[in-house]
Amino acid sequence: MSRVIGVFDSGVGGLTVLSRLRARLPEADFVYLGDTARVPYGTRSAETIIEYSRQGILHLQTSGVDLVVVACNTASAVALPVLAGEVAVPIVGVVEDGVLEAVDTARRGVLVLATPATIASRVYKEWIGKRRPELVIEEVACPLFVPLAEEGWGDTEVADLVVRRYLEGIELRYFDLVLLGCTHFPLLEPALRRCLPTDVAVEDPGPRLAERVARMLGPMLARRGVVRFEVTDSVESFARVAGWMGMPAEGHVAHLPLSVLTGD
Amino acid sequence: MSRVIGVFDSGVGGLTVLSRLRARLPEADFVYLGDTARVPYGTRSAETIIEYSRQGILHLQTSGVDLVVVACNTASAVALPVLAGEVAVPIVGVVEDGVLEAVDTARRGVLVLATPATIASRVYKEWIGKRRPELVIEEVACPLFVPLAEEGWGDTEVADLVVRRYLEGIELRYFDLVLLGCTHFPLLEPALRRCLPTDVAVEDPGPRLAERVARMLGPMLARRGVVRFEVTDSVESFARVAGWMGMPAEGHVAHLPLSVLTGD
Repeated sequence: MSRVIGVFDSGVGGLTVLSRLRARLPEADFVYLGDTARVPYGTRSAETIIEYSRQGILHLQTSGVDLVVVACNTASAVALPVLAGEVAVPIVGVVEDGVLEAVDTARRGVLVLATPATIASRVYKEWIGKRRPELVIEEVACPLFVPLAEEGWGDTEVADLVVRRYLEGIELRYFDLVLLGCTHFPLLEPALRRCLPTDVAVEDPGPRLAERVARMLGPMLARRGVVRFEVTDSVESFARVAGWMGMPAEGHVAHLPLSVLTGD
Repeated sequence: MSRVIGVFDSGVGGLTVLSRLRARLPEADFVYLGDTARVPYGTRSAETIIEYSRQGILHLQTSGVDLVVVACNTASAVALPVLAGEVAVPIVGVVEDGVLEAVDTARRGVLVLATPATIASRVYKEWIGKRRPELVIEEVACPLFVPLAEEGWGDTEVADLVVRRYLEGIELRYFDLVLLGCTHFPLLEPALRRCLPTDVAVEDPGPRLAERVARMLGPMLARRGVVRFEVTDSVESFARVAGWMGMPAEGHVAHLPLSVLTGD
């Protein structure tokens, strides 16, 4: 059978997850909702993040998707525990995969890089700590990574300097795994690799999430799926950023008025 | 008589304007509205900026202020031309003062630094160019200045590098005036001063705006005015940023639910 997967993100960061999902599930159709009129989520309060996420996820549910992937760690960490009970369609967050990655592969310590709201939720520290209490776990809020990624500066000298500043004072020798706890952060991987010791692995939970979703959905018809994009702000600027993220979206992006989400 | 001035901004950038207004008009009362649940405005589309600004300005009007200062260049450049006719209370934008600063003081050329939306409006180029056609006028969109300012990194090595990158390829010898076309940008003045030739002036239109508002309002009772803050997202994080911007707000910040603005 054919399947439609709804992918929800605050903006363009979730495209890194969508690209992993498409590679693993070329047969599936996708609806990607980017709330670009209200991005970023990661620096806002829990109440605001929950409300924005609720509106987006309910909209995808109404669109008739079979499954919603919350491709935003902030929304997954802060809003999913509240919203999971409110929504009828199955929801998959991205936090669990990062936690499993750490639990399965870390040897000494895990350094979680995420947004301030994700860190404030304490979800990584608690979930990883519960299953691997002997691991050193430290979290660093890196709010500037998001605008750097959106500016296309993830592989620049500026990114290197920002990475170094956020890692200042962290005893890197305690860690063998850096977990990318925000879907924007894979775009800064080149800078992170330059700034971290070579024996520290940088892990993007995206592939593991794609694997899990594939298992949940089971076999599908052999066909080439399509992707439809909906964004709450400018169609053009989204298509431009998606383009240089290797996800050509031009001609497939529709504007979704915010009033549809807020119910004005 | 006593006067209440409404100050509207997308977030904390307008606090640089509020501080100028308070210094010039210590007798006035202020209501500062920061739309922190939807900041930043400067990277969004004109339609979205107009809608958000409309909601904020109408709310201030309903609150009974005598005058609204739009302390955000993006909203002033993009939304004011549309909204001025819709609102009964007098509105003052911040663009006019930057234009006058350039028209009055530039000798060779003006380099305008602003958000992408302000630059796209072409308002500085057209207004300055019309009155001083012999001036060289160039505009540079600096979207990363906003998150840098909000992170408190305006006076760091990172800010220096970002400034240098945005100014790459600009022939600085053509310019004697750099106009700060965004109310966040005064927070990056230290970095700008370090990166620009010493004979280039860096101008913040804030003091000129304050002077203009004082003239509009006329004499006031000798008293000490008060400031009330309203924000659409977290009260605590606004108070914290306001604090290190030299504008102690703690205990004077109220949360304004976004639904009051959107009319849900």
